[in-house]
Formats: sequence, structure tokens, C-alpha cells
Amino acid sequence: MKRVAFLLVAVVTIAGVAVYVVTPSGHAAEEASPIYGVTIPPGYRDWKLIAVSEIATGDKSQLRAEFGNDIAIKAYKEGTLPFPDGAIVVAQHWMKESSPGNDQVLAMAPMVAGLDNPKSFVPGSRVNAQFMVKDSTKYAATGGWGFADFKDGKPGDEALHKACFPCHAPAKDHDYVYTRYVP
Amino acid sequence: MKRVAFLLVAVVTIAGVAVYVVTPSGHAAEEASPIYGVTIPPGYRDWKLIAVSEIATGDKSQLRAEFGNDIAIKAYKEGTLPFPDGAIVVAQHWMKESSPGNDQVLAMAPMVAGLDNPKSFVPGSRVNAQFMVKDSTKYAATGGWGFADFKDGKPGDEALHKACFPCHAPAKDHDYVYTRYVP
Repeated sequence: MKRVAFLLVAVVTIAGVAVYVVTPSGHAAEEASPIYGVTIPPGYRDWKLIAVSEIATGDKSQLRAEFGNDIAIKAYKEGTLPFPDGAIVVAQHWMKESSPGNDQVLAMAPMVAGLDNPKSFVPGSRVNAQFMVKDSTKYAATGGWGFADFKDGKPGDEALHKACFPCHAPAKDHDYVYTRYVP
Repeated sequence: MKRVAFLLVAVVTIAGVAVYVVTPSGHAAEEASPIYGVTIPPGYRDWKLIAVSEIATGDKSQLRAEFGNDIAIKAYKEGTLPFPDGAIVVAQHWMKESSPGNDQVLAMAPMVAGLDNPKSFVPGSRVNAQFMVKDSTKYAATGGWGFADFKDGKPGDEALHKACFPCHAPAKDHDYVYTRYVP
């Protein structure tokens, strides 16, 4: 009985430790990207717009908006390269959806801003949001940038984040950032 | 000769008056929209983003960004309708262009965010910018909104601006504003 009690305590203790280890780890994994430890910058949706873009395939596409914090926007406007430490660039992606309601109105205006018989598309569901955080010391091995890709508030896995820097490497001449400021 | 001189003076004077009339008129026309007298709100490109959108035809399309001043953004986020006086909504339109440089990189990533063999599009030349300014007293006859459509810093003509309100009338349930906030 003494041995059973000891085992029981041991199991509970181990289980407790295991729960303790898993919970903070799981919690941390929800908040920071693997490899880089980048978290979602609060309020980024209200940051200034760098540009808009589209990634399109035959049957489905994404409308995108790129935001910058004040350090990034200042660097863009002044043409400062490399971006200074503290700069954050965000790409927010939505699935592109047609807007039948808007199209009904456009049908009454056969020519809109030089476009003949135009159709309207608007953002639908959120796909993901990508973040680049500049810290030339902490992220020296990846061009000075820490990366993160979040979907529904949760970061992608390590394999996804291993792809970030190689994919941005061709943009080395623009400090690894593809998006250009559009006035 | 006296008559010729008189005529010459008269012509020069008329020409001078004509130039005088045209110049301030042209100058004023560069700064305020006809009918509504709406001017370009300074710094709107740095305002918070309401949404992005696309107007597309078969062969050419526009990428668009809609911005709001703080009064408009607050109303959007809180679901306040009608928009309060002082709200300004801006739609900035660019021609959509393909990005061969981005496409080269995407070709190395056959699947991007669930899109197979994607192509990249970015904003090209600026087309126009449209403004809606809420003043329920001044613009009572047009749903409380004053409208403006500027291209290269110059407002469109009166005929164009006569089309603004009828085109927005179907959106009466959303206080004549088509663009919905996209989180």
C-alpha cells in the first residue's frame, strides 16, 4: 500500500509536471512563431498602409494589404535601406470574393473610371497574416529579420517558418522585403 | 492705326480678362470638386484602412484601398449609422499590374497559402481618388454627403459629380457608403 501510494504520488507528480510543461509550451506556441519567437504586434490593423496586392490563380485569389509601423513607414517614405531596427512590416491576406451587390450597382454604370462592364471584388475570409520584425542583432542569421505567419491567431509550424527567409532571399537588394510603398 | 491700336488693346484686354477668369477658375477647379466644393483632405494616404477591393474587367483592372479619417473609422468599428458629421471616406484607385519579379519568386514556391501556381499583382499608376465628406446640414440634399473625384490632383467635371449621389443611392441602408470595414 505504501508502494502504491508512492507510485500514485509519482504518477500524479509526473503528470503534473507534464501538464505544466505542455501548457506553457502550448500557450507560447499560440503566441509566438517558431524559430523566431515573433508575436502578433498589437494594433497592426490600424497601422499605415504600405501597399495593396493580389495573389491570383485561375479559380481563387487573395486580396492583400501590407501595413508598416511608424519606423517602417518612415523608412519607406525616406527610402532608407536597410530598414532600421524596430521596423515591422505586416501582410494581411483575405480570400477575394465577388460582390454581387456592388455588381448590381456597377451594371447601372456601364463605364466606371475607364473600365468597361466592371465587376467588383472585396475581401472575404481572412487567410493569414505575415510579419517581419527587424532586429539586426537578434536575427543576424536571417538578414536581420524575424518572421512569423499566423492563421486564426496561431503561428504556422517550424517547417513553414523555415521557408520564410529562403523565399525572401531574392529580395536582398530591398532588404529582403518585397512590398514597395505605393503613393 | 488708331483703330488697330484700340482693337489690339481691346483684344489684349479681353484676352487678359479671359486669362484672369480662366486662371483662378482653373486653379479653384484644381482644388475643389464642382457642386460640392470638396477638397483633397491633407494626409489621407496615411489614414487607417477600411478595406481593399478590386474592380475588374476582362483585360484591365484596378486595385483599390479605402481609407477613413478617425471619425469614420470609429463609426465603422462601433457600427454607427448614419456616419457622424466630419466623417470622411476615401477610395484610392490604382491600375492593377502584374509583377514579373514577384512571379519569379512565386515560381519557386509552387503552393503559396493554399494557392496553386499563383501570380502576383501590384498597384501601378494612380487612376483617381474619390472622397465622401459627411456634413448632414451642408449636404442635406445628397444624403448628408459631399462628393469629390480627383485625378492627378484635379477634380472631375460637373457631369461626373452629378453621377456621384445617384450611384450611391442604392447603398442608402449603409448611409450611402458601399465599402464595409474588413477586420
